[in-house]
Amino acid sequence: MKNNIINPALTVRICMDLAFFTRKLEVKVLFIESCTGGLASSWISSFNGSSSWFEGSLVTYSNRMKNIFLKISEKELLTHGAVSDQVASSMANSLLKQKVENIVTSSITGIAGPSGGSQKKPVGLVFFGWAGPWGVDTSHKKFTGNRQQIREEAAKYAIINLAKRVAVNL
Amino acid sequence: MKNNIINPALTVRICMDLAFFTRKLEVKVLFIESCTGGLASSWISSFNGSSSWFEGSLVTYSNRMKNIFLKISEKELLTHGAVSDQVASSMANSLLKQKVENIVTSSITGIAGPSGGSQKKPVGLVFFGWAGPWGVDTSHKKFTGNRQQIREEAAKYAIINLAKRVAVNL
Repeated sequence: MKNNIINPALTVRICMDLAFFTRKLEVKVLFIESCTGGLASSWISSFNGSSSWFEGSLVTYSNRMKNIFLKISEKELLTHGAVSDQVASSMANSLLKQKVENIVTSSITGIAGPSGGSQKKPVGLVFFGWAGPWGVDTSHKKFTGNRQQIREEAAKYAIINLAKRVAVNL
Repeated sequence: MKNNIINPALTVRICMDLAFFTRKLEVKVLFIESCTGGLASSWISSFNGSSSWFEGSLVTYSNRMKNIFLKISEKELLTHGAVSDQVASSMANSLLKQKVENIVTSSITGIAGPSGGSQKKPVGLVFFGWAGPWGVDTSHKKFTGNRQQIREEAAKYAIINLAKRVAVNL
């Protein structure tokens, strides 16, 4: 089972930073994960007491899930692709638009590989969105390594950058 | 980081069994996780090609998530508690009731500890629901070990028993 994370101590530190800042801002974390498939959520919820700052996650692996729970239209998914800046933004912003209050979110959608890549969207390319009191913003990054390494690096990147955004909004 | 699973080879085998049977039944797997917080989903999605048999997950860690996305009323949550046979059943059955077709589901709700236990509902007690063409059925089990061990054992139990139910419905 490819579940050993690359640097456990670093990941604990990242999660603890997020816990500290979200508690201070009095918001709860909600992930909208696609390619990481619940990995970010499973890390966060591994900490005792995480229910005080972790709301939960939508692991919208399929387009149907993105459509039903995030209200992202088939047209948007077809036009931009599920792995895109546009869809990462819609994923991150969806629950705030649905009036779920006092949350901060991070979305993760990418090509974890080893299959599924293309010249335009290669394996390792991951788009992120972060939404909260600061509005919604996005980014993307090309990770290297195998499927599990890409997923772990993407989960870490989402968590670190969510913590940063929460910190500057205190 | 407490992310090393107890028996990697066994977990791979369990997930592969589930993949085999769900592909044969032409359904996709959807987890509704509470105490495992995305762990079952992160295992399933670690396999290349899992998008052909994995739909996604709702990690309804908070009661608010259970209410918004699973339509479980506050009254039901208050009456039975989130960790109960009744709520495990409602969690497993919710998306089929919401007309999400061609899926099989497993719900997981329990006390992972180390805090949060009581005499009636001790640490390690986990309720499960499984829904699909067979209807919905539930079970519960008391696991031992630390928080991560309880979560891993619960995720395995959910996956094994979902595979069994799919297998007998082929």
